[in-house]
Amino acid sequence: MEHLRAVELPKAYRLLNHGPTVLVSTAHAGERNVMAAAWAMPLDFDPPKVLVVIDKATHTRGLIEQSGVFALNVPSADQVRLTWQVGSESGSAVDKFARHGISTHPGTSIDVPLIDGCLGYLECRVIPEPRNEKNYDLFIGEVVAASADDRVFGDGRWHFPPGFPKSIHHIAHGVFFETGAVIEGNTNS
Amino acid sequence: MEHLRAVELPKAYRLLNHGPTVLVSTAHAGERNVMAAAWAMPLDFDPPKVLVVIDKATHTRGLIEQSGVFALNVPSADQVRLTWQVGSESGSAVDKFARHGISTHPGTSIDVPLIDGCLGYLECRVIPEPRNEKNYDLFIGEVVAASADDRVFGDGRWHFPPGFPKSIHHIAHGVFFETGAVIEGNTNS
Repeated sequence: MEHLRAVELPKAYRLLNHGPTVLVSTAHAGERNVMAAAWAMPLDFDPPKVLVVIDKATHTRGLIEQSGVFALNVPSADQVRLTWQVGSESGSAVDKFARHGISTHPGTSIDVPLIDGCLGYLECRVIPEPRNEKNYDLFIGEVVAASADDRVFGDGRWHFPPGFPKSIHHIAHGVFFETGAVIEGNTNS
Repeated sequence: MEHLRAVELPKAYRLLNHGPTVLVSTAHAGERNVMAAAWAMPLDFDPPKVLVVIDKATHTRGLIEQSGVFALNVPSADQVRLTWQVGSESGSAVDKFARHGISTHPGTSIDVPLIDGCLGYLECRVIPEPRNEKNYDLFIGEVVAASADDRVFGDGRWHFPPGFPKSIHHIAHGVFFETGAVIEGNTNS
């Protein structure tokens, strides 16, 4: 928590630009949940918007539909097992936070728990698009606050120091890629 | 080309599941273009669908609106400079293929050039959603054919051999992450 810093909203998309798998956290009327989502990405810069696919069968779906808010948490490689676990079980019968000993801190702008130990956070309000939600399980969120661990994200971009756990990218069946080495594509700069 | 193999459609989403930056190739009435897109992801499994954000200011946008088709090409780290170049210039005044010496092979199901040397390909037909396209620059495509380099993708998943150029993930301003090491999240398997 001591390393958590606000991310200016026009740079919030950078938290997702490289395509990490995220944890979607939600809460409504005393209930809370968290699930994994590989299908989340930026949609716009400023005001920042994001897309996330939330299946109708998930407990998260009902909570988001009732509360109109959700958070995208960017987990680190140290949370890869947790990410698979909360992505493999339903929160309809169990409090995953208690089950897995997940500690949280409150969102700054929405009433949703943020998962401690993640690399970055996007707090989002749903922009209602009923046709997308019904036909494609697709939700659009406006990012109303963002924060990140200042050891890995600063000046609007990621810069993982050697040895620090990086973000993760789901391949299939609980196997992930870590975010890898930096390579320069702009050889004219 | 000798290493190109068809990917069965229900596994086509796996080409994008880990969040790589893609090249969007298009063609219509003798014109063709290619641009980079960090904002592309799967939307559904079977029949497979994808999302991609295509700004109204791009030349690609007009070609897609006229042809109703596009391809997502997954470039390798060997193409990182090319990815930045075709993402930094407009195809309205220049044929990027000629300018950068890009060779292509034809799509199997749509009349769009696929960029040689990429790791994987998704050939897509637009599912018209005018509200998304107009308000969010968001396009939905049904994947009608997919293929990948059998040295890096097989049995429905990525498996990069040591030393082989991996996929790339845009951070900002032409700086990318390579796809990194494999880590196991499913410790019960």
